[in-house]
Amino acid sequence: MLTSSTIERSTFREAMSRFAAAVNLVTTDGPAGRRGVTVTSVCSVSDQPASLLVCLNLSSPLNARFEENGVFAVNLLGQTSEEVARVFAGEGGLDAEARFASARWVTLSTGAPVLEGALASFDCRLVDSRTVATHRVMIGEVAAVRLGEPGRSLLYRDRLYHGF
Amino acid sequence: MLTSSTIERSTFREAMSRFAAAVNLVTTDGPAGRRGVTVTSVCSVSDQPASLLVCLNLSSPLNARFEENGVFAVNLLGQTSEEVARVFAGEGGLDAEARFASARWVTLSTGAPVLEGALASFDCRLVDSRTVATHRVMIGEVAAVRLGEPGRSLLYRDRLYHGF
Repeated sequence: MLTSSTIERSTFREAMSRFAAAVNLVTTDGPAGRRGVTVTSVCSVSDQPASLLVCLNLSSPLNARFEENGVFAVNLLGQTSEEVARVFAGEGGLDAEARFASARWVTLSTGAPVLEGALASFDCRLVDSRTVATHRVMIGEVAAVRLGEPGRSLLYRDRLYHGF
Repeated sequence: MLTSSTIERSTFREAMSRFAAAVNLVTTDGPAGRRGVTVTSVCSVSDQPASLLVCLNLSSPLNARFEENGVFAVNLLGQTSEEVARVFAGEGGLDAEARFASARWVTLSTGAPVLEGALASFDCRLVDSRTVATHRVMIGEVAAVRLGEPGRSLLYRDRLYHGF
């Protein structure tokens, strides 16, 4: 047990590493340019209207594109998309063009890139956002949904990718 | 593919059922009284300061206790806690006393009930909250962390509990 007024980052990260989280690829496109990042901080908020939220790190200036475009897609990844997840997590240091060239995309309602191989994709319009510490919490209302082929989920736990 | 200005609840729920989510038991205690609910809408926000967020349905008036108390604990459940998850999801229709009597608890910094058998528990002070559609998004700063015995995670996907 660890108690303090300010929890050490390492303690928090250790505990959070036990949190099994679905891996998502969040994408945007529009006047500010295309962008995609691999994130686990996504959750469903409401089904009336259909809404979800995504937390994005403010340390990357390119993440401002999500808000500037005002639209984003949350692509729920299956185990077969592990390589795509790694590429958009920054492994290999590819630039945006090369990252997007590594997979196939379609668009639905908003124009945000929707990954063809995702288990499900939620095409969203940004309806609210706010800064919480180092992150921006974006709330999206779902304008379109695409169901892909069913399959095993891609999870992240214990600092590793897993299929489930 | 389904596109419309307002996505049908059933479509959204079907797609979200593919989202494998860690199951958490969120609890509070204080002047407003004790309360616990099983939720999957939890995510890490920042590690500096350590912060996370939880979405709670506003349809239950008892959920106001979380904000009234201003403190809550997020207990990350392992597979061995499936029964506890079901009880706090309302199965069996037990009242609050009986629900809490079904498990063992400790407290850390805030006084919110921390489940002894959790994989990890995050004891939080509420620092912000807002309404999004049918839900309240609560942001907590982590005041204390407790690591339990490591073990398999309890997940919810395809409208079923799973161990992973």
